[in-house]
Amino acid sequence: MPTELDRIDPRLLELATQVSTATLTSQLQKRGFANTFMYGVVALRPDLRLAGQAFTLRYIPAREDLDPVETDNRTSKQRIAVESVGPGDVLVIDARGDARAATLGDILATRIKLRGAAGIVTDGAFRDTPSIRIIDLPTYAQGQNPYVSTRVHHPLEINVPIGCGGVAVMPGDAVVGDGEGVVVIPRGIAEDVIAAAYEQDQREEFIRDKIQRGASILGVYPPDEQTLREYEEWKRGHRPQRLR
Amino acid sequence: MPTELDRIDPRLLELATQVSTATLTSQLQKRGFANTFMYGVVALRPDLRLAGQAFTLRYIPAREDLDPVETDNRTSKQRIAVESVGPGDVLVIDARGDARAATLGDILATRIKLRGAAGIVTDGAFRDTPSIRIIDLPTYAQGQNPYVSTRVHHPLEINVPIGCGGVAVMPGDAVVGDGEGVVVIPRGIAEDVIAAAYEQDQREEFIRDKIQRGASILGVYPPDEQTLREYEEWKRGHRPQRLR
Amino acid sequence: MPTELDRIDPRLLELATQVSTATLTSQLQKRGFANTFMYGVVALRPDLRLAGQAFTLRYIPAREDLDPVETDNRTSKQRIAVESVGPGDVLVIDARGDARAATLGDILATRIKLRGAAGIVTDGAFRDTPSIRIIDLPTYAQGQNPYVSTRVHHPLEINVPIGCGGVAVMPGDAVVGDGEGVVVIPRGIAEDVIAAAYEQDQREEFIRDKIQRGASILGVYPPDEQTLREYEEWKRGHRPQRLR
Amino acid sequence: MPTELDRIDPRLLELATQVSTATLTSQLQKRGFANTFMYGVVALRPDLRLAGQAFTLRYIPAREDLDPVETDNRTSKQRIAVESVGPGDVLVIDARGDARAATLGDILATRIKLRGAAGIVTDGAFRDTPSIRIIDLPTYAQGQNPYVSTRVHHPLEINVPIGCGGVAVMPGDAVVGDGEGVVVIPRGIAEDVIAAAYEQDQREEFIRDKIQRGASILGVYPPDEQTLREYEEWKRGHRPQRLR
Amino acid sequence: MPTELDRIDPRLLELATQVSTATLTSQLQKRGFANTFMYGVVALRPDLRLAGQAFTLRYIPAREDLDPVETDNRTSKQRIAVESVGPGDVLVIDARGDARAATLGDILATRIKLRGAAGIVTDGAFRDTPSIRIIDLPTYAQGQNPYVSTRVHHPLEINVPIGCGGVAVMPGDAVVGDGEGVVVIPRGIAEDVIAAAYEQDQREEFIRDKIQRGASILGVYPPDEQTLREYEEWKRGHRPQRLR
Amino acid sequence: MPTELDRIDPRLLELATQVSTATLTSQLQKRGFANTFMYGVVALRPDLRLAGQAFTLRYIPAREDLDPVETDNRTSKQRIAVESVGPGDVLVIDARGDARAATLGDILATRIKLRGAAGIVTDGAFRDTPSIRIIDLPTYAQGQNPYVSTRVHHPLEINVPIGCGGVAVMPGDAVVGDGEGVVVIPRGIAEDVIAAAYEQDQREEFIRDKIQRGASILGVYPPDEQTLREYEEWKRGHRPQRLR
Repeated sequence: MPTELDRIDPRLLELATQVSTATLTSQLQKRGFANTFMYGVVALRPDLRLAGQAFTLRYIPAREDLDPVETDNRTSKQRIAVESVGPGDVLVIDARGDARAATLGDILATRIKLRGAAGIVTDGAFRDTPSIRIIDLPTYAQGQNPYVSTRVHHPLEINVPIGCGGVAVMPGDAVVGDGEGVVVIPRGIAEDVIAAAYEQDQREEFIRDKIQRGASILGVYPPDEQTLREYEEWKRGHRPQRLR
Repeated sequence: MPTELDRIDPRLLELATQVSTATLTSQLQKRGFANTFMYGVVALRPDLRLAGQAFTLRYIPAREDLDPVETDNRTSKQRIAVESVGPGDVLVIDARGDARAATLGDILATRIKLRGAAGIVTDGAFRDTPSIRIIDLPTYAQGQNPYVSTRVHHPLEINVPIGCGGVAVMPGDAVVGDGEGVVVIPRGIAEDVIAAAYEQDQREEFIRDKIQRGASILGVYPPDEQTLREYEEWKRGHRPQRLR
Repeated sequence: MPTELDRIDPRLLELATQVSTATLTSQLQKRGFANTFMYGVVALRPDLRLAGQAFTLRYIPAREDLDPVETDNRTSKQRIAVESVGPGDVLVIDARGDARAATLGDILATRIKLRGAAGIVTDGAFRDTPSIRIIDLPTYAQGQNPYVSTRVHHPLEINVPIGCGGVAVMPGDAVVGDGEGVVVIPRGIAEDVIAAAYEQDQREEFIRDKIQRGASILGVYPPDEQTLREYEEWKRGHRPQRLR
Repeated sequence: MPTELDRIDPRLLELATQVSTATLTSQLQKRGFANTFMYGVVALRPDLRLAGQAFTLRYIPAREDLDPVETDNRTSKQRIAVESVGPGDVLVIDARGDARAATLGDILATRIKLRGAAGIVTDGAFRDTPSIRIIDLPTYAQGQNPYVSTRVHHPLEINVPIGCGGVAVMPGDAVVGDGEGVVVIPRGIAEDVIAAAYEQDQREEFIRDKIQRGASILGVYPPDEQTLREYEEWKRGHRPQRLR
Repeated sequence: MPTELDRIDPRLLELATQVSTATLTSQLQKRGFANTFMYGVVALRPDLRLAGQAFTLRYIPAREDLDPVETDNRTSKQRIAVESVGPGDVLVIDARGDARAATLGDILATRIKLRGAAGIVTDGAFRDTPSIRIIDLPTYAQGQNPYVSTRVHHPLEINVPIGCGGVAVMPGDAVVGDGEGVVVIPRGIAEDVIAAAYEQDQREEFIRDKIQRGASILGVYPPDEQTLREYEEWKRGHRPQRLR
Repeated sequence: MPTELDRIDPRLLELATQVSTATLTSQLQKRGFANTFMYGVVALRPDLRLAGQAFTLRYIPAREDLDPVETDNRTSKQRIAVESVGPGDVLVIDARGDARAATLGDILATRIKLRGAAGIVTDGAFRDTPSIRIIDLPTYAQGQNPYVSTRVHHPLEINVPIGCGGVAVMPGDAVVGDGEGVVVIPRGIAEDVIAAAYEQDQREEFIRDKIQRGASILGVYPPDEQTLREYEEWKRGHRPQRLR
């Protein structure tokens, strides 16, 4: 479980919710990280922004001798995970991309919301999605399926390295999502990447404004020196907003 | 064609629209039915609830000697089906999961709505989906495709056993849908399953409320004896609502 | 690049936005064109209608010696295309159906909108889709992906024949879209197809109204002579509306 | 069940085994039949040629109340089909393209061989494929799967129209296969198509020989009048062989 | 790592190579294990039979900070696994079904063979498959890909529970393969399942012989009492052979 | 069309047939080329090795006004390509990965063989594959389909840059194939990559031999200084063989 020492400054995570995953992915590519955006994982609430740190849960395929008919809250790794996540955590579930049954449903999602977690991400499915969609919590999944998880999945362990949507996720990594999907930022470079992405997004907001006022992309995107000088000036007079 | 004797009490179908497909699927699993939720069939109107009895229509692949250029309302099994469905019927079309052409379009959907049917379900595609989406009728399909049905499909017979979305559908089976998808309940156990699911959903509503008020899942989900007693009390003072 | 001589009368393109792609596809099938509707290309703004002429851009797979790290607006075929499209043009990008990286993002989409183009269509992905979705421009893609285009795509040439979504697209072809998808109409028959489709849609609107007022489909859909006479009368007293 | 009257002359079926499915498909396209080659159906024995008439078996998805644990040879439509096929019959099984369980295994395939049938075709899977592969019988399937059929399939009826591999199959249709796959020829034109395909294959054998001896394709493929005259001469001196 | 105590009697594993995976899967289904056959995992050497115990290796997606450019035999979990497997072990690699790079190539496969292991199974790809195919070792994979593993995979840990081909695999489980694919038998019931499957296969060989000599399936498959008595007699005079 | 000046020394291409595509891909990765191995393109003759230079042919989707019913050898770009390829050329056909119809059949393949070309590669399908398989020519395709090419494809141009199997192909690039698939080597680095790969393969042959004689991978794979010295010695006494 990520200790307090691993924690990312909540103000930085707040900043991350103002940066697009497209920009974060660009910053990661610049640093040599080519595979950080989850494949096939879609927002149930594209109107909400997600930013937190990975609390991981690993599923393997179910087997009749592993999964009891009746779930026991004290031994089920799924239930222990739900009662362990807290403020700043994103529960990231490795379901091997298998959506033939749910990974969890609306009651557990409600509890996760109540515990203050930042969101839930899985490369499998949710059940009760009509109910989950009305919880004020950013949730991401590959799909929806009403069958209960134990039909297909066995929750094996928590806070180990996992794969989710084809991306490596370590406990404590920054996990940021928008309407486009979810990006994972290795813990060690999270602050650096978020700050640089914020700066890039500001610059792109300036460029987009300029283009909306009629500028050609020539000399503007990518910006030449003149445009960069204008941007520095603009930045001084500009108050960041929450747009996305 | 289902006779009057096979009819499910309309009040029970009404109850079914207040129960999630996730809960109905759980109840079917408890009774040994493991494969009742349609795969790859999506709601065009996730805001509407579907409940009725299957009126089936079976398509096979089109062949140039089977399908006349001009559709004849008196011989086309598709057209006969449209003019046969009535109140309480759900037209369920087996299109072999093939969405390379539509199974029907907005004019026939309008007629089906006018005849009082409860909805339309297909594992193929619809055409005119922008228009179908504004008809006040729950409709479910794998996708959308503007090509007319005869390009790919030949309507062969009505009210025979079919497969739809990977699920067996018998004429008269209960067909219930929500934003998550469509579940098929064998006719013989429809009343029992719907009633039990309604009871389960009530209990889960109570549990969700309890958790929203801050309870842990321990002793609550799954409920222990104390929680079940509280639930019985709550139920006495509770008026069911239409929430889903 | 399509010369002025190739231009379709803007009033006809305006008319095309009132006709469904389902109807246009039917008219093309009648003329022997069986493969004109793009496969796997979805509207980001299903509320907007698209009609214009194809300005094509062809991507091939990226290769490290072809794609410079820094994009040069003067040599990049993608950038030249963006600064070349104008009123009545639809930028149609052949991305070989590969959505592992974007074909373009919100800044270029903003510029395309500002230049007066009618829309953007690709069988690949866009990035910055949350931003693109709020631009008042009809856009169609296979999916979304935050990775920049050069990771996967090399923009090779503009205004050559391409394939997009499995359909042949020639520069200057009419490109029409609605919530169902995108249809391509060969330039030589564009006026004829659009006019005939408009007439068909009017007739179907009449039929749908009749059925909504309670008529059976018998004698109405397809219409017999009596219905056709009624339709001619109705048309005289009817002012076309923008419904779709 | 096809009566004797529907039977195709065995000598013509024998001829069909000397014609490639590519040529048969061309002849069907010439007659307006555009969709006759099964999609995703692969030969287990590409060294054997298949030709016979369709004896159809239709599966729908399994359901726990339809499929008894113990198979009864007297009531199971699968078993009745196996004990009904005879010389000249090809058992064609509509498994809705679902390969998650087998449609039959080596014991039933052995019995079908012993009854003199011409082959087995399914768009589902076989089990015991290592054993089936050593039976001297042309067999075609989408894949292999060791799970028994009743896990996924319920055999519903025999000798009804079906879809298999995306193609319409009527009882009695000619079914011809080679290493490329399986083509279905409507009963009414079977003799005509096979004879014309045989003639075409002869001509192509002549052309291929000519090209193998060094001729350009110019004037040869497609053949001009001179080439056609040479062919007529060649044919007079040529004894057909079994090559494919 | 499985200790000697967990070892399955080599004579039983030898017996397992005479039993088809189809029969083993049936025996597992009878005991309530519904999901034991790997999906999408194909034999490179369908002529060899596989039987051994799982030595597991778990990969997660590669990340640039996890995977050094140069592989170190002392720290790489892949290399440690290769130098740890021995007689009776099957190296089972969880590659999350991702075949975009290899899991290992011919040099490591050669070493694994030399160490006496029983085989290699992965739901990812191998590289150097033309070379691997000529090693006298049963190998199974989803596909082939010449890219080295570190491009996509990071070897994380050995002998932990994994998923492979959609099936749960515990270290020490029996892993049996034939030309149809790979079945996993939970360690606790391995002896029982193999023995029962051997008995079933003997009985089916008897039945198949009977049918090859002209018997109908009636009373034979499934066998009635008379057939079972004949079988018992046959078994007394029958010496088991290695056929599969 | 590649001029003589672009030609790669035939002795080097001969050498390339002794090197595995796995090794060539490694060498390309070392030089920064990460995407050179075709995806989904399979050998029809895995026993033959392919090495030559790309002669490209680009198909776009067919359209009824582009493709005449009767093929004209003088105008069809497909036919011109067939009569243009010669010794050292590999005909590489961009079919956009669409296998719903063939790209060519056995007669054209026969002619290509007769003209001395090195092979044929397509990310679409071939027809007449049973016949093509017996031509002594390395051929690679995504699949097989008996429908003639004009049903789906329009041959647009020859010797332009194309994509094939997700890889960029320039006219004149080296194209090398084995049983694993096809790798494309940019013309400018072809000699360097092939020579380096040959050296690497020699070293790996030495390592494999060493391991086959019982060595551990420690110090051998990757080789330490001692092993490298042994290799240099071995190389002096070793005559290269054609093994793959």
